[in-house]
Formats: sequence, C-alpha cells, structure tokens
Amino acid sequence: MDVRFAAALEAIVGRRHALTTPQEIRAYAYDGGVDRSLPLAVVLPGSTEEVAAVVRACCERDMRFVPRGAGTGLSGGAIAAGDAIVISTARLCRILEIDAPNRIALVEPGVVNADVSAAAHPHGLRYVPDPSSMAACTIGGNIAENSGGLHCLAYGVTSAHVLGIRIVTPDGDIEWLGGKTVDTPGYDLAGVFIGSEGTLGIATQAVLALSPIPETVQTLLGIFDSTDAATAAVSAIIGRGIVPGALEMMDALATSAVEADVGAGLPTDAAALLLIDIEGLRDGLEGTVDAVASICRERGAREVRIAQDGPQRDLLWKGRKSAFGAMGRISPDYYVQDGVIPRSQLPAMLRDVAAAGTKHGLRIANVFHAGDGNLHPLILFDKQKEGEFDRALAAGADILQACVARGGSISGEHGIGLEKRDCMPLQFTPEDLSFMDRLKSAFNPDDRCNPGKIFPTGRRCGESARTAKSGTLDERTAALAGEPF
Amino acid sequence: MDVRFAAALEAIVGRRHALTTPQEIRAYAYDGGVDRSLPLAVVLPGSTEEVAAVVRACCERDMRFVPRGAGTGLSGGAIAAGDAIVISTARLCRILEIDAPNRIALVEPGVVNADVSAAAHPHGLRYVPDPSSMAACTIGGNIAENSGGLHCLAYGVTSAHVLGIRIVTPDGDIEWLGGKTVDTPGYDLAGVFIGSEGTLGIATQAVLALSPIPETVQTLLGIFDSTDAATAAVSAIIGRGIVPGALEMMDALATSAVEADVGAGLPTDAAALLLIDIEGLRDGLEGTVDAVASICRERGAREVRIAQDGPQRDLLWKGRKSAFGAMGRISPDYYVQDGVIPRSQLPAMLRDVAAAGTKHGLRIANVFHAGDGNLHPLILFDKQKEGEFDRALAAGADILQACVARGGSISGEHGIGLEKRDCMPLQFTPEDLSFMDRLKSAFNPDDRCNPGKIFPTGRRCGESARTAKSGTLDERTAALAGEPF
Repeated sequence: MDVRFAAALEAIVGRRHALTTPQEIRAYAYDGGVDRSLPLAVVLPGSTEEVAAVVRACCERDMRFVPRGAGTGLSGGAIAAGDAIVISTARLCRILEIDAPNRIALVEPGVVNADVSAAAHPHGLRYVPDPSSMAACTIGGNIAENSGGLHCLAYGVTSAHVLGIRIVTPDGDIEWLGGKTVDTPGYDLAGVFIGSEGTLGIATQAVLALSPIPETVQTLLGIFDSTDAATAAVSAIIGRGIVPGALEMMDALATSAVEADVGAGLPTDAAALLLIDIEGLRDGLEGTVDAVASICRERGAREVRIAQDGPQRDLLWKGRKSAFGAMGRISPDYYVQDGVIPRSQLPAMLRDVAAAGTKHGLRIANVFHAGDGNLHPLILFDKQKEGEFDRALAAGADILQACVARGGSISGEHGIGLEKRDCMPLQFTPEDLSFMDRLKSAFNPDDRCNPGKIFPTGRRCGESARTAKSGTLDERTAALAGEPF
Repeated sequence: MDVRFAAALEAIVGRRHALTTPQEIRAYAYDGGVDRSLPLAVVLPGSTEEVAAVVRACCERDMRFVPRGAGTGLSGGAIAAGDAIVISTARLCRILEIDAPNRIALVEPGVVNADVSAAAHPHGLRYVPDPSSMAACTIGGNIAENSGGLHCLAYGVTSAHVLGIRIVTPDGDIEWLGGKTVDTPGYDLAGVFIGSEGTLGIATQAVLALSPIPETVQTLLGIFDSTDAATAAVSAIIGRGIVPGALEMMDALATSAVEADVGAGLPTDAAALLLIDIEGLRDGLEGTVDAVASICRERGAREVRIAQDGPQRDLLWKGRKSAFGAMGRISPDYYVQDGVIPRSQLPAMLRDVAAAGTKHGLRIANVFHAGDGNLHPLILFDKQKEGEFDRALAAGADILQACVARGGSISGEHGIGLEKRDCMPLQFTPEDLSFMDRLKSAFNPDDRCNPGKIFPTGRRCGESARTAKSGTLDERTAALAGEPF
C-alpha cells in the first residue's frame, strides 16, 4: 500500500490502530462464511470523527473501504474483495446510555449484541434480536445485515428494534438517520440503512429499542418421527393464533451433532425436534403451554418435554445456539445456507433440500427458524476432498433456486454480500436490480463504501464464493506473506 | 388544461374516468387537513398499466401528478399544490387474493382499510393497522403515510404489515418492491416507499401481512381526576411489561364532545380517561386485565370499568374512533395536530399543549395514543372569526416546537405533506434535509411525482397551510368556477 496513505491513516487513528503487516491483517481475510480476501490495511478508529476522517482520506485517494464488526457474518459482507482497506468498529464499543423509562439504549456499533441485554437486564429490559452468534457479533454488523435471531418470530428482526443510527456517509459526512422515537418524519433512511450490508455508510452510534423481559418463559421440546409431522405442528401452532417467542426445528442429522457436542439429552433417533419458547405474564402461561403441547401430540409428536427449570431450559437452547459449531463433530467443513419460503411450503422444501444433498452426494443437516419459514440447511463437506467444496456451493445454489421457485427468497438474515451476489438474478430482474442500484448510486455513487457487495457480477449463482476464495485471497496472501493460504 | 393532454388522458382511461370540469374536480381540492388546492384534472385509471400510461403521458408533457386514495389524509399529501393532475386509485379497489395458510393478502391500493380485515375475518385473520379513518381510508394512502392506528402500539404501524408493493415509478415504469416473504434481500425499497407520502411513485398492488384475530379481547375504561395520574398509569402499565392491544387517552374536553356525539356513558367530569384493550388467548387474560385495573387504581383512578360484552366494548371504541368528528359538537372547526414525544415526557407535554392554548386564546382537546407517546391535540377554532385560523396554526406550530424540544418528533402518523413541510427545519438540519433529498432525487428527480411535499419552502412553520389555502385554491377556484370558495 502507498506509504503516504498509510501515514495518513496512522495520523488519524494512531500507529497502534493502523494495521498494515500481513501478520496483523491476516485474520481480517475471513468472516464466518466461505469467502476470503486480504485487505490492504486495517484501521481501528476510536470515534465517529476518526471514522469520518478515515473515510475522507479514502475519498481523497480514491481508496475503497469495508466496514467490519466482529466478522461473524456468513455472506462475506465484511470482507475486502479487491483492493480496499477495512475500517473496524472494534474500538467503538461503549454503551453510552440506557434510558430505562423510555426503553432505549444508545450504543456504539462495536458493542457485542449480548452485552446490550446484559446492561439492560437490571432495568427489567432486553434487546430482542438474538442471532445465534449473539455472544460475539456486534450491533453494527447486526444493523448492516438486518440480523434475525431465535426470538425474532414474535418480535421482529433488527429493523424493528433500531430507532436511529448515526452514520458516516460514503463521502465522510456525519449524519443522524431516524431518532429516539418511532417513525421519524420524512423518508425512512434509518430503515433503508438497516440491511444495506455496509454499502450506504458506516454506523457509529445506534439508538436501540429495549423491550421488557417476559415475566415467565417456558420451553417445550416436541419430538417427532417425521419432519412432515413436525412442520404440520408448526403450522397448527401458528394457525391457532399462538405466537411463540421462538419456534425452532432441528432434523436428525443436526440433532446428532448437537447431542455429541453439548449432551443435552436430545433423542438422536427422532426425525425432527421442535424447540419452542412460550413467553409472557405468569398468569395464564400454563394454558398456552398446554395448548402447544396438545397441538404437538395431535400432530404426532411421540413425546413432548417441558423444561422444568432454568438450567434445563438453558441446556436445550445451548444445543440450538451451538448447532452450527457442533457440525464439526460430524463433518470437517460445512456451508450454511439461508433461504426463506412461505411457511406452507416447508414440507415440500425440506424434500427439495434432501434432493439437493442426494444430487451432489453430500449430507445436509437442517436447523432453522421454522416459525418464520427461514431455512438454514447445513451442507456438510470436506474441503480436502477434491471437488467437495464446489459441490457444496452447487447444492447451495440448487436450494436457493428451489426457495425462489416456491415463492420465497434467497436470504432470510445472513445477507447477500459476496456469497450470493450472483444469485440475485434468481429473484430479481435486471430492472429490479437497476432500480435498487439507483439507491446505491444516490448515496455511494463511486461504490467506494463496501464495494462489490449485493449486486451481481455476471457469474453463475454459487460461483462468487469460489472466485473470491481462489482468485483473490490465495494470490494476495501468497504475494504478501510468501506462503500459500 | 391543454386540450391535447386532456385527450391523451381520455384515450388512456376513457372519457368517463378523466375529470376536467370544475364541478367534477372540486371535491379533489380537499383532504382531511387544512390545505386546499384544485388540481388541473383528475384521472381514475383502472389498472396498473393505465396508471403507468398516465404517468408516462405526464412525463412526456412535463406535467406533475399527485396520487390520491380516499382523501382522508390530514397533512395535504393528496392535494395538488400548484399545477398538477390527480391520479386517483379509487377504481383500483379489488382484493385479489387472501392466502390464509401464509397469512397474506394481495390487494389493490384503493381497497378500504376495514375491508381487508372483513375479507380476512372468515379465516380468523385481520389486517392490524387501524387508523381511526379505517372505514374510509384506503391501503394506498395508508402505505403513503405509513399510517398508525389504535392497535399499532402492540403490533407496529403499516410498515410492519406490508411485505411487498407493486409500484408505478415516477418515470412510468412498473416495479415490485419487496415480496411475499419478510425481509426480501437487497435494499429495503418497500420499507422506504412506505411513508414516502406519494413522492416515490404510485402503489398499484400490495402484499399485506395478516395476523390472527385474538381469541379474546377485554376493554377497560380507567377514569382519572388528573391527567398526571392517567399518564402515570400509562407508564406503569408499560413498565410492568404489559403490552395492551391499544392504550388511548382522552381529556375532559374531548370526552365532553364524544359523549355529546355517541352517548357512551362516559363521565364528562373526569380529567382524563384511559381506554385499554387487552388481547390474547382466553386462558390467563383475566390475570392481565386484573393487573391493569389494579395499576390504574394504584395510580389514582377513581373508577375502572370493564366492558361486559361486545356491544359495550364497541360503544367505548366508537366514542374514541369518532372523537375527531365529534369536535363538531363543541366547535365549528378544529385543527388536529400530530406529534410524538418520549413517553416519559407526557405529563410535561400535556402542560405545554395547554399553555399553547392559553397563549393563543383557543381551547385544545386531547385524544391520543398514550402508549406510543403520540399526541393528537385538537385545536378548536371558528374560521368565521377573524384571525382564529391563523392562531390555530400558530398554536399547532408551538406544540410541534415543544415536541422537538422534548426529544420528540413533529409527526407521528399523519405525515408532513404540505401542512408541515415548513416545520421540518424544527427537527432536521439543512444537511439532514439534503441527505433526504438525495433519495428523492434518485427516484423522482424532477419532483414530478407529488411535487412540493415534505421538503421546506423557506416559510415559517405553520405558514404553509395558510399559503396553500389562501393563495392557491381560492384564486384557482374563482378562476375556474367563477365563484369564491
């Protein structure tokens, strides 16, 4: 990288917070997905003003930049594809205010998701969106990806819980979008910033809506001998007008991995498990719990367990939350997909997923937000085996194609990023994409802010990741660090 | 209007559906607010394609156009300020599909809000957003204004219930924004279209999310001798973690008008009433109702009534829903304001409202969404009395200023439109407004689609309405119809 530019960055953030050596920046080549690429440098600004100064320095030199939170994203959103520096929010990690009477928190983007709820807890409040990565992922990344989570079925995803965002624009200006009350007048720029995957600027502060911690929570485990019976129970619960706090499903393969990992006493011989949270006031919760248990039994559950205490409950959820990581117990590598379908299509879609596995000769585990129709097929492979990674990507592309064919969508909550940019044409016409591009062009006209994300490159769905991985990172890493990746 | 343009419009929509005489178009000079202006013509297209053809005809002739639903809006959003034609969605009034298993409805924009819930009712479903005007207002207008309603406290405003929108763009193209599932990938263009007050195009179809009708609803009436006690009860109910379906407040003046109008048996000597819906499964609802009643009594309610049956419940709500119209019982004219404040500021803000009334020598009634901190002061005046209308506007401006000073916002759900465009600088800096304008410029670069709305003109807050009313309509009407307005 240009020495004068490096010096300019150091002058803004300090020597310690401008990383330029291969050793320092290597970790920033990854996120939680399959894409990899090494940035030119990494800066860690300590304030909104420093972020703005870094962005302005980039603009002056026509340098591209990529915002990065904790790097737990699954679609390559925080990865610097091509020549770009990474602007990390890791040092912007303060909870600035908890305003309990008005139920809002003012936080910096580098605050870990779970820490917001921890800080709100003494006030009887919590921050609802709870991605499985909540112990590591940060609010800025959650905003960029409009993250969902286990409890978003009842309460909505990130966009329903962020009132205002202070951003540094792609030009290096500082702007507040939204505010401290709901439905700020004028255009909903905060709303469109949320989920824009870092392409419209960098969040440096956020006003989060806090919600009361439910008085009581009961957790049920429904054990089924067929996935069709389990999905029928899901539809029946929702159809009854019950809105569980969470309604998750795991198939047999996922259960076997989870059980090997956390030993929650899950039946590994069941075809499908439903994990259900019923939340609310203590009075009357029993009635709802009984109703859900009855529905499960009516739809063929061979057993319904109700967690008897907090530790039992935590153990069940620990299994679900660690499900992705637990795949390591049954496979050297996995590729998690993220698609959405109308809930009524769940049984047919699970068959489509199984068919994609058969076609490409790979096992696929399913762990997902059943209540939302948001699938997370975990495609198992071994990258040491010639062609398996490519087959995993191809299976993923088939699954996405099936989601769209069933009236659904190619991403529920993991974003498009690099991973799925070439799958966008499955769902959007060129006119749709060009209409979307008008928005980007208005706020990020030179594509300098998180370049190359979301919009297709002309390759085939499933090819992007492969290209980024083999073409960009390996070459650059080899050049920089003198060793193959 | 140009004869050839009129002929072009007639060729698209048919002679019957192109209105050009003063008699035909006079009703289109009004909405539910205080602004008035006569359009050049009114067209009523019968399909998305006809809307697109009309818009393209406007583009070819550099003619401006204003989308219009039922005209119940309160901020002049559907009024053609300056030379423009109105494109009415009145003929696009079909419910195209109710998909009960996936809980969605596909409707045209001219469908009346209440008719969606009526159509969904046989399936045990409803469309949640319920503005007080729900018997007349239409889905297209609801989308334009991001309408709230009595039951949006628990379930969110329009943007939380619209998944996809088919629009005609300001260029006359046809686009789908969003889709049939939540959180469509890419930018949330549907989200930003909702609440854009008709400036980003014309909705011609919408995918609405339907919600289960609660198994049971109980309605409570809390009767208080002071507004402070009533607002304290509001905070305490919310603070307890209870989320009522609706939580509305009326002061003594509003109650007297409502009681004169519908005779619901409301105590006209009380300082404030709280009207509270508790919704949910039958099991356990009593516990919540008891908790709410206790909280009201603890905070000084002199009486808490619980509606004993559907008719009693409907009577209470009829009073609330007809509150605006009931003002006619106690005043020749009224001007309804719409501001938001953090809930903790409610007691102080109600004093600010009273002070604005005293200052300008006008009575102000309060009927509002207390749970949301969304105020609706009804400023009573007599337009026959010299200067009273101007004083009403000035009192409204004072109230908005106080909302902003208390950390709130100049509009909760009625929009900015013409009425409040010059109040925008109270809340937004020139930089904020110019950032917002980038969005408009990207999609509506010539300001041809609903011109003159939202963005300030340089006049003082409270002056816009006066200008539109006296400067535009009277002159144009006189010129067209040969009579004073």
